[in-house]
Amino acid sequence: MNVTLAHGAGGRSMRRLVTDVFASAFDPSPHAEIGLAALDDGAVLRVGEHHLVVTTDAHVVSPAFFPGGDIGRLAICGTVNDLAVMGATAPLGITSAIVIEEGYPLVDLERIRTSMLQACREAHTTVVAGDTKVMGRGEVDGIVITTTGFGLAQRAITDCGLRPGDVIIVTGFVADHGLAVMAQRHKLAFETPPHSDVAPINHLIARVLHVAGDEVTAMKDPTRGGVASALHEMAEKSNVGIVLDEPAVPVTPAARAVSELLGIDPLYVANEGKALIGVAPEAARRVIEALREMHQGRDAAIIGRCVDEHRGMIVVETGFGRRLLAEPEGELLPRIC
Amino acid sequence: MNVTLAHGAGGRSMRRLVTDVFASAFDPSPHAEIGLAALDDGAVLRVGEHHLVVTTDAHVVSPAFFPGGDIGRLAICGTVNDLAVMGATAPLGITSAIVIEEGYPLVDLERIRTSMLQACREAHTTVVAGDTKVMGRGEVDGIVITTTGFGLAQRAITDCGLRPGDVIIVTGFVADHGLAVMAQRHKLAFETPPHSDVAPINHLIARVLHVAGDEVTAMKDPTRGGVASALHEMAEKSNVGIVLDEPAVPVTPAARAVSELLGIDPLYVANEGKALIGVAPEAARRVIEALREMHQGRDAAIIGRCVDEHRGMIVVETGFGRRLLAEPEGELLPRIC
Repeated sequence: MNVTLAHGAGGRSMRRLVTDVFASAFDPSPHAEIGLAALDDGAVLRVGEHHLVVTTDAHVVSPAFFPGGDIGRLAICGTVNDLAVMGATAPLGITSAIVIEEGYPLVDLERIRTSMLQACREAHTTVVAGDTKVMGRGEVDGIVITTTGFGLAQRAITDCGLRPGDVIIVTGFVADHGLAVMAQRHKLAFETPPHSDVAPINHLIARVLHVAGDEVTAMKDPTRGGVASALHEMAEKSNVGIVLDEPAVPVTPAARAVSELLGIDPLYVANEGKALIGVAPEAARRVIEALREMHQGRDAAIIGRCVDEHRGMIVVETGFGRRLLAEPEGELLPRIC
Repeated sequence: MNVTLAHGAGGRSMRRLVTDVFASAFDPSPHAEIGLAALDDGAVLRVGEHHLVVTTDAHVVSPAFFPGGDIGRLAICGTVNDLAVMGATAPLGITSAIVIEEGYPLVDLERIRTSMLQACREAHTTVVAGDTKVMGRGEVDGIVITTTGFGLAQRAITDCGLRPGDVIIVTGFVADHGLAVMAQRHKLAFETPPHSDVAPINHLIARVLHVAGDEVTAMKDPTRGGVASALHEMAEKSNVGIVLDEPAVPVTPAARAVSELLGIDPLYVANEGKALIGVAPEAARRVIEALREMHQGRDAAIIGRCVDEHRGMIVVETGFGRRLLAEPEGELLPRIC
């Protein structure tokens, strides 16, 4: 049996591969409050009285430059946002390991570095250690950037804390990142071309935690596999059902047009500057108001609620009826992040 | 200008690229006691009363399986050893981000995972978080593993603390890793084929710190570019000269034979289970004895001393005369780790 692209594209195949080959093999850490077996966005380690959140991601997006960002911005934002949704909204630092193909233009490398620097500044963090490797021509397609972030959380927030009754909030428009990369890769021309949403949202999350504290029960950033994949993980791990109010999910007219043209459901498309937040019902209004006061959260919306029925499953209310939201099996679009 | 293989192979070209493009660009971290600009094996951050050491490396070794180890063992050991030489000998945990080529045999992936697990157990640590990405056929050559390690140090140890009078110790035989990979890659047959030394040496380093404490003035693991590259960095950053007693450098007869056949100086060949340790002269005997009591240190030797002359340079005493040890410019062997 061999590795397939489906294994690397979010969704069920990847979760199975990661679980079977990796997560179940390694010994649990005596320091870990949340370890590999949790398959969350990162780990949480106990250091004295501190909760140290660590997260790592390899970034292989193709093309490396796309409307709204590039692989450098993506690498920093992906890591900052993974830390943030676990409760570490002020990163201590980020490490960056870069693999470059021989012959890669130095000017592109510098552009990527500048994007990383800019994203770090937006997130109020920096790169503290790094590594550079060069592979021969044809041994790697351009550039791969692996970033690892670490930060302290007052309280570790997981993707498995949803309870029946909780409300699901998304912080803004979905699907823009995936559509931007897809349009760029296939050189599709649109009147209003989709722009990636790639951005650090740690300050936004900090604001949410400030106004809602313990009433935030779960968070996840809907990257590979989009909202559909993230909600499935959250529902399954939390052992709740989710009812998704589809018309409430914010999608720009441009993204909707591109999605329809490509025959893709925006719920399955990757985001790189959004979070799904589960909150106690009494905090929902407060969180929405706090989000909408900030630029990055101005389009935040309540998109669903957790129920005690159909556990692990997502029921979509379309406005005309109900349907089950399938969990993405594998490849919708490889190399999206 | 484009990136060349020399940029990724240790030595002067790489240091220049890394410094120019990356290290000098990012803002210093308010948390960092040792940050990116130090170009050490990792960073040291202040977390309350703790010194948190973090280090990252992308592993691209080709072939992925070689006598004595594989890319999985290498990834864990490289990270454990980078932490150890900075003073964090009991890792809190390791993250692992894996990029795999479509079609990669699952059986090889499992073999690599098992090697990682085994190396983790030897080092008394584990993988706490991970990521998996798949690239298309021909988009990456096999597998790339980026590991990032975290650990606490009682005291951060740098590669720049050498003082005139200090003694340089190597913990055992050099050059075996690089020669093993080289022989495997070029399918060279030897009566006694070289075996990689890849191993976690954190327990060995812990023992050294236990017996010598503050008398350990600098440490570094001589990986890419070998002993020559590591000593150059240590001498230059510490602003001392080093006199290297070449006949004292432990090289097995097998490694010497292969080196001579290939026309390669063992001092320039990568190691993955060795450390260079700078100690105050009064501690040298104590450290050597402590090392030799342990299996991994049984061939430890004093190989040099630091002087106030020819700062930043390494003078080799050959037994017949003296010569300057050139700093490797670039590629001796790409994809060695």
